Amino acid sequence: MTTPDVLGRARSLVEPALRTVVEGLDPRLRPSSTYHFGWTEADGSPSDVGVGKGLRPALAVLSAEAVGAPAEVAVPGAVAVELVHNFSLVHDDIIDGDTERRHRATVWSAFGTDEAIISGDALHNLAYQVLLDDPSPQRQVAAARLTRATAAMIAGQAADMAFDDLPTVTLAECVAMEADKTGALLAYAASVGAVLAGATDARVDALEEFGMELGCAFQAVDDVLGIWGDPSVTGKAVGNDLRERKKSLPVAVVLDQGGEVADELLAIYGRDGDLTDDDVARATAVLEAAGGRSHAESSAGAHLVLALTALDGLGFDDGAVADLNDLARFVADRDF
Amino acid sequence: MTTPDVLGRARSLVEPALRTVVEGLDPRLRPSSTYHFGWTEADGSPSDVGVGKGLRPALAVLSAEAVGAPAEVAVPGAVAVELVHNFSLVHDDIIDGDTERRHRATVWSAFGTDEAIISGDALHNLAYQVLLDDPSPQRQVAAARLTRATAAMIAGQAADMAFDDLPTVTLAECVAMEADKTGALLAYAASVGAVLAGATDARVDALEEFGMELGCAFQAVDDVLGIWGDPSVTGKAVGNDLRERKKSLPVAVVLDQGGEVADELLAIYGRDGDLTDDDVARATAVLEAAGGRSHAESSAGAHLVLALTALDGLGFDDGAVADLNDLARFVADRDF
Repeated sequence: MTTPDVLGRARSLVEPALRTVVEGLDPRLRPSSTYHFGWTEADGSPSDVGVGKGLRPALAVLSAEAVGAPAEVAVPGAVAVELVHNFSLVHDDIIDGDTERRHRATVWSAFGTDEAIISGDALHNLAYQVLLDDPSPQRQVAAARLTRATAAMIAGQAADMAFDDLPTVTLAECVAMEADKTGALLAYAASVGAVLAGATDARVDALEEFGMELGCAFQAVDDVLGIWGDPSVTGKAVGNDLRERKKSLPVAVVLDQGGEVADELLAIYGRDGDLTDDDVARATAVLEAAGGRSHAESSAGAHLVLALTALDGLGFDDGAVADLNDLARFVADRDF
Repeated sequence: MTTPDVLGRARSLVEPALRTVVEGLDPRLRPSSTYHFGWTEADGSPSDVGVGKGLRPALAVLSAEAVGAPAEVAVPGAVAVELVHNFSLVHDDIIDGDTERRHRATVWSAFGTDEAIISGDALHNLAYQVLLDDPSPQRQVAAARLTRATAAMIAGQAADMAFDDLPTVTLAECVAMEADKTGALLAYAASVGAVLAGATDARVDALEEFGMELGCAFQAVDDVLGIWGDPSVTGKAVGNDLRERKKSLPVAVVLDQGGEVADELLAIYGRDGDLTDDDVARATAVLEAAGGRSHAESSAGAHLVLALTALDGLGFDDGAVADLNDLARFVADRDF
């Protein structure tokens, strides 16, 4: 199967279960949540814009299959991880002031900040409710691991917020922030199916490592696309991350070098008011010339290699490993 | 022991454990959280203004003792319930726009909305982390029950928010909202110690019922104090709830009757701009004359009676039952 097929298969398995629990929320919490997932419009009418790439459900399903369990075993874990991921998007969009996501108004901009806070809270809580509605020991382990992954994700978001108030960040700080903010939940997604299947610690750890490396590759590519991506493909404005003065990986690479190029970048970021198109173009050129882009691309490549070797030698199912590795390459090579 | 002694004993048992986990949060999430709990000032310097009445920890501890278990058994449950209660306060203060709590600036007004969102999320998640860091079946049951209580609490808050946009509410809608918003978590607090002690379902259910009745009494008293309370004791402005046009129990009682008094109240709530002191005084008089206050007070009394009988005949520890009943009377008779 091709990676789009793998993503589609996982989505068709996981989305009905996700939909059932989200549509089971209190009627007052439902409209903003089903809107966020792309199942309804803001006025409540049906929509089928859908729920994103479905990377996390695919990882969860493949992690069950990698240890020889049926895909269905992963479903509660896949649903829980989608709920946590999406609660964080709903809250992060408030925090970042982002008005658009997936080419639609964000929840807070369509329903108001108060509604976005409370429906994010409801999705966060629902993740644990889904995992704990069955008293098996595997569910308990899966829920306990989710508390730790989610705590790391929240700490990563707090670090990212703190970066806005710091004049500069080191490369190490940026890498640690991204491992927490993006890597922890992908590591969880890539292992939860195996956890629910009762796999050994060694196998769960290897899958988690695969997911963490994939997460670091994913975020490095995301950071490159946030500066050099094609707006018609990414759905974000040109130079979006620079305009928002983000201290993403290519920026941290250059700031960490210090010297004249770092000073020039700091001078641009330090300007009062909105950055102009010229500022953004100049910052982009500085980053490119100083190696910010190539470092981030190499980093993505290195993490991809680590992901591709993480699953060796533990007797995982060959087909599932092939699909996981294809998925990792797909993520690292994407332009969206 | 007097009720203040019981509250103090539970607080001295639970607060160190609560403090340990909150102080273990990521350093970026810590200052706003320790500030909220009253352990630090906004600038990070130590404070000992403390963490509220400690009603929930006391209920949790007594529920363990009621089934013959040592108080210590309740501690993880007491910590979790305090974390959920306080996460909801941090987020509700944003939603309600409240700038003061316990005579201090709320988290969002001291640290900003973004910080209040993320630290509330961290406290919410930490509640599950505390319960699930030990793999016993009792912990799993306690966590599963917490997901349901928290879901009800969130739904109750969503209902309360929705009331603001409705011209009128029925008494039944108001009572259901308050049972969810306040009752569900108090019912959880009043049973979690017994759950962690591995008590029978019949005993856990009875304790939960006690907590739910106590919660309804608590909220009815709260609603009376929100209108007729002494500001120097409650720490809220005179007629605070009317000024905010809340549809609390005394208001719902009168709206539900319909007729001229309901119309007069609706006319006052329907005015443009802030309500004047005269508006608030007139609404207060209307509510009093139409029986809003006496109905709410009778309701508190009736729920107290139900709480006091909920624990009969199941062989609970006499001393713990006496303390729980004293606590219920203390809550129902309070003026703060």
